[in-house]
Amino acid sequence: MFEAIEVGRKISKSAYQAQLPDLRVALVNAQYDLRQADFPVIIVLTGDDRIGCNALLHTLHEVMDARYMRTQALGRPTDEERERPRFWRYWSTLPRRGEMGVFLDGWPQRAVSDRVGKRIDDIGLERRIEHIRSFEQDLVADGALLIKFWLHLPKKILKKRLKAAKKNPDKAWQFSETDWKIYEHYDAAMQMAEQVVRETNTGEAPWHLIESTNAAYRALTVSKIILEALTGSLSAKRPAPKPTRQSKRKPEPLVTSEAQPTILSTVDLTQTLEYDSYRQKLDTYQARLYRLTSKARERGLSSVWVFEGWDAAGKGGVIRRLTAAMDPENYHLFPIAAPTEEEQAYPYLWRFWRRLPRAGKVAIFDRSWYGRVLVERVEGFARQSEWQRAYYEINDFEEQLYEHGIVLLKFWLHLDPDEQLRRFQARETTPYKKYKITEEDYRNRDQWLAYEHAVHDMVAQTSTACAPWHLVASQNKRWARVEVLKTICRSLKTALKG
Amino acid sequence: MFEAIEVGRKISKSAYQAQLPDLRVALVNAQYDLRQADFPVIIVLTGDDRIGCNALLHTLHEVMDARYMRTQALGRPTDEERERPRFWRYWSTLPRRGEMGVFLDGWPQRAVSDRVGKRIDDIGLERRIEHIRSFEQDLVADGALLIKFWLHLPKKILKKRLKAAKKNPDKAWQFSETDWKIYEHYDAAMQMAEQVVRETNTGEAPWHLIESTNAAYRALTVSKIILEALTGSLSAKRPAPKPTRQSKRKPEPLVTSEAQPTILSTVDLTQTLEYDSYRQKLDTYQARLYRLTSKARERGLSSVWVFEGWDAAGKGGVIRRLTAAMDPENYHLFPIAAPTEEEQAYPYLWRFWRRLPRAGKVAIFDRSWYGRVLVERVEGFARQSEWQRAYYEINDFEEQLYEHGIVLLKFWLHLDPDEQLRRFQARETTPYKKYKITEEDYRNRDQWLAYEHAVHDMVAQTSTACAPWHLVASQNKRWARVEVLKTICRSLKTALKG
Repeated sequence: MFEAIEVGRKISKSAYQAQLPDLRVALVNAQYDLRQADFPVIIVLTGDDRIGCNALLHTLHEVMDARYMRTQALGRPTDEERERPRFWRYWSTLPRRGEMGVFLDGWPQRAVSDRVGKRIDDIGLERRIEHIRSFEQDLVADGALLIKFWLHLPKKILKKRLKAAKKNPDKAWQFSETDWKIYEHYDAAMQMAEQVVRETNTGEAPWHLIESTNAAYRALTVSKIILEALTGSLSAKRPAPKPTRQSKRKPEPLVTSEAQPTILSTVDLTQTLEYDSYRQKLDTYQARLYRLTSKARERGLSSVWVFEGWDAAGKGGVIRRLTAAMDPENYHLFPIAAPTEEEQAYPYLWRFWRRLPRAGKVAIFDRSWYGRVLVERVEGFARQSEWQRAYYEINDFEEQLYEHGIVLLKFWLHLDPDEQLRRFQARETTPYKKYKITEEDYRNRDQWLAYEHAVHDMVAQTSTACAPWHLVASQNKRWARVEVLKTICRSLKTALKG
Repeated sequence: MFEAIEVGRKISKSAYQAQLPDLRVALVNAQYDLRQADFPVIIVLTGDDRIGCNALLHTLHEVMDARYMRTQALGRPTDEERERPRFWRYWSTLPRRGEMGVFLDGWPQRAVSDRVGKRIDDIGLERRIEHIRSFEQDLVADGALLIKFWLHLPKKILKKRLKAAKKNPDKAWQFSETDWKIYEHYDAAMQMAEQVVRETNTGEAPWHLIESTNAAYRALTVSKIILEALTGSLSAKRPAPKPTRQSKRKPEPLVTSEAQPTILSTVDLTQTLEYDSYRQKLDTYQARLYRLTSKARERGLSSVWVFEGWDAAGKGGVIRRLTAAMDPENYHLFPIAAPTEEEQAYPYLWRFWRRLPRAGKVAIFDRSWYGRVLVERVEGFARQSEWQRAYYEINDFEEQLYEHGIVLLKFWLHLDPDEQLRRFQARETTPYKKYKITEEDYRNRDQWLAYEHAVHDMVAQTSTACAPWHLVASQNKRWARVEVLKTICRSLKTALKG
């Protein structure tokens, strides 16, 4: 693969100088247009030529307006990063719509170096490649312009440069020990690199393989590719603006036949718990939860608990029974509402990635990423293509949490429409709960069946081995609270043993 | 101080239950109103009663709507946090306007525990108290409602509870080793606590000292104080909305007499450098910069370099000469434009605090926090009270960088109006520089004198021993580039020796 581009492509300095001014004008203009555009540009600048990548970055700083390209040279993961699933660092540094982000090295190079450094095995590499593909697919599906460059330097040229650098270290200060190491592991690294490049060379995110020997050729070629891709995207007909809560669209018809029973019909809503027994169990499990979460904190075991359910099913009450039995330092509670303007400037999962807990901590989500396939689907806030691919995106996301060792628990609190109505009416007569009930809540009741089918599809699509759903009967609040506490304690205990 | 509140205040359970519903309605309503308001609420919940603080937090979760209070229980600093100046963690977790943030422990408690744990000495404590006062002053001046509670538990009550907990650990799972330690160091800690509380008990940020023995009294008192402060702020006449770039106000007249020379007249603009000598010096200093920044990275020495100057003075060109000689992993470039909507939801310095570098890295600011006392002052984007207090805020900010060991360098690139005009005209005839010149640039020239006086005041007010200004002659670009490189290399060398 790489040998094929060792053909000695070059360009003369004068030819380079002649083409530069026009290219510059065009690129800077495109950068300015980008700032008004509705998509981000993500450039991956990587390869086996470390110094070439750095030099090219400097050239891009000169050819383009450096103020409008944000470079991420992430290097070795920090402990903040190591305590989260691997892609957290990339999600946290994504450019927003209208911005250009340059990732030096980035996720493909990291996969190669982790394999060369034996931090992962062949299976680990395969899994990593899978996640790379999902990640890039997410970005592109969300509208990002993703341009990936692999700079390749033939082995004999690298050797020549290293030797020259040794002779004249004052002129070649950019060479370091690292480069000798790259040379030593050149053959093994190229083999891994080829696999990563080949398997991530997808239709939506193709690689540009660039021969890196000649600086002028490299700079000109890369600049032209960026320009072409950027102007192409800028002039392409952009999809219609996203539906907002104000201008929502008619929802797509449900595929599932409405007359069929759903998974929710399997939940036994008659389960109940008397007050005395409830108090006693609550005490027992709260004490246990306190000990388990303290131990998890010590051991660096993180958790993510997701709460979804019908309005008035008692999510808040359940969550308060949990937080009351935890050290405030050990958890973070995230109530999820409609995305803010800031959050809308990024792919859908961005705001959940950035809330992932550090080692040992618990993140509690009161509503979650499942809004995409529930309210956004039913109310038409998301396009059909968006909520349909969300199942895949969510499964990949949760798989990464699982692989990182996070205890991921997902609860759906279930009740029947009559009980919900009783609770709505009770709220209206309780002064401090009155604010909790709005006309929208009643309107949502008309959509009960649509929601029930959305829940059914959600559970069917996302109840996986690494992240199963727990459907909790909440017709009786006491039962639900104890049930959730019990499930969490059991899972933590197992995870702490493992 | 604390003995005075050991008077055994309490409230019966029935009295508590009777008052709770109304209090709840009022608080939740106020929370809802807050979401539309233009100020943040910052509650500091701390004291010598650790378990009391936790219990009170849980009560507040029940009394208020837990979804609209964000709790920060920061605990021991993480390495991300340790690598930045101390207050970084608080700046990064501030609530935005319309939000409520509860800081459990927070900055006052940390000062006490650092002194008790001998991590700082008396002078360190005094300095810390100074920064606490500046920080709180910033928040309040920016419109925040800051409510601080210190929960105090008499020593004999603490002892009684610890003994009871020992007898029945299953009922008292919230007690831990920490609490025995608190008991051991009680007397010393109370002495430090008293000093911190006394010296941070300012008019704008007073402490509420709460006797913590009786849970009902504690909960009711704190809830009422929050309610009163919150409704008071909500109904108070808010200041007129801030001037924006669209609706700018007439700038305040300059205090300095315009006929007087300014500090800029002391810069020798005749300094120049021939091309050959420039190339040679550039090579020397770039190689040196590469080595010094690599060494700084290894040693964990961070830098912040600030670039301000006249339009067309050559900031971009200088910065590119620096970044070309650095490993991309070692620096971050931050071009500073008008604040985004997100950034406007926080105090002015927030966006600079969050960009502070990790250990060993360089943050380069292309324009900076000095915009407040330059463009925002001259163009009337900031009120006089805002830009005037900015000198004090900036000095405290920079002092914290200095105390943290950051190499802070500030450059003003100077040229005369004729040279600026020549460069503007040259830009108009260079295709790829044309975008750099707008009508606004010409308009700004009419304000030259006003800007010059703003620069003079800025240098006079903020050229401190720990953060002096470097005024660089940029009439000749080559001279300026070498001068900046030289200054940076010299400072890094000194810092690496020290």
